[in-house]
Amino acid sequence: MILKELSKHSLYLALMHYPVVNKNGDEIASAVTNLDLHDIARAAKTYGVKAFYVSTPLSDQKELVEKIVSYWVRGKGAEYNPKRRDALDLIIIKDSLEDIVQDIRVREQALPKTVVTSGRSSSGNVSYGCFREMLNEKGQPYLLLFGTAWGLSEEVMTEADYILDPVMGSSDYNHLSVRSAASIILDRLMGRET
Amino acid sequence: MILKELSKHSLYLALMHYPVVNKNGDEIASAVTNLDLHDIARAAKTYGVKAFYVSTPLSDQKELVEKIVSYWVRGKGAEYNPKRRDALDLIIIKDSLEDIVQDIRVREQALPKTVVTSGRSSSGNVSYGCFREMLNEKGQPYLLLFGTAWGLSEEVMTEADYILDPVMGSSDYNHLSVRSAASIILDRLMGRET
Repeated sequence: MILKELSKHSLYLALMHYPVVNKNGDEIASAVTNLDLHDIARAAKTYGVKAFYVSTPLSDQKELVEKIVSYWVRGKGAEYNPKRRDALDLIIIKDSLEDIVQDIRVREQALPKTVVTSGRSSSGNVSYGCFREMLNEKGQPYLLLFGTAWGLSEEVMTEADYILDPVMGSSDYNHLSVRSAASIILDRLMGRET
Repeated sequence: MILKELSKHSLYLALMHYPVVNKNGDEIASAVTNLDLHDIARAAKTYGVKAFYVSTPLSDQKELVEKIVSYWVRGKGAEYNPKRRDALDLIIIKDSLEDIVQDIRVREQALPKTVVTSGRSSSGNVSYGCFREMLNEKGQPYLLLFGTAWGLSEEVMTEADYILDPVMGSSDYNHLSVRSAASIILDRLMGRET
């Protein structure tokens, strides 16, 4: 019964490699990290995310993602570890945020609301409790955006529909990897705790 | 006030590379993965874990961990990214579970209770709610054990004081990376949700 209710959610996830910022705040296109794809795809599959978009405009980086996904979904990896295949099968490569939004619009017949994540707290953030309630609204897809490198560019942050509260632990240290942050956020939104 | 209360916890974490099992259930010593060290150290720092033990009996693997930690804690990495230094500074390399337990006993003047994690559900598991309450008992240190490869050996599982409930998402898919699982479990135990 709970599973049936949860499957109503239309949550999509995107890992952005552009436009993101480097240590100095300059806008860059970051390189793809193999374990980002595996870890976030496995978490996305665990929590019922509908698709995991990996976004980069760079041809060589798109080829790299395609090569990794192909190995695990259609190549020898799929035979070696079918569970990994099921996860990486969620990956869709797109050039830009616009292309992702358009793809979801076509699938869902509705424009997704974008929700950005950040380690920085800012006014107007949406809480986890509030976002969980929003996910229960029928017919409204959501796209949860994660930045690589030092995070999403200011422009993406500003133009998003919502900014999700940062993940805080039990200290003031606030520097999780994007793999950890994505896993924790999905668990906060969709996890079944005992 | 909440921070003060949380700082009472004596939670330690260990990533075991031996004895773990491979795909076929054979007992092996697994290889160290660089991003395990970074991701789990950053999560441990975020959630106030007292030390992050990395355990392997293999000399070349111990040297590898020492090299990575040294670069980020005392080498050029520390200057480049002091936040990473603060996280990797939690890492302590030990040969075995026995050595880890002994190290905690000396620090805490009390024998730690061991809590193992597993993707498999079994009878007698302890829930997250229950473990959170246990962590508030003053003076009792806990050691949370994570396995690499296909998980901790049967012997370690059997000899542990507690088995923590597996992380379940909103589907039956249950194959998170150890990096994701450690991050989610620490958040469930110590996270401050908004």
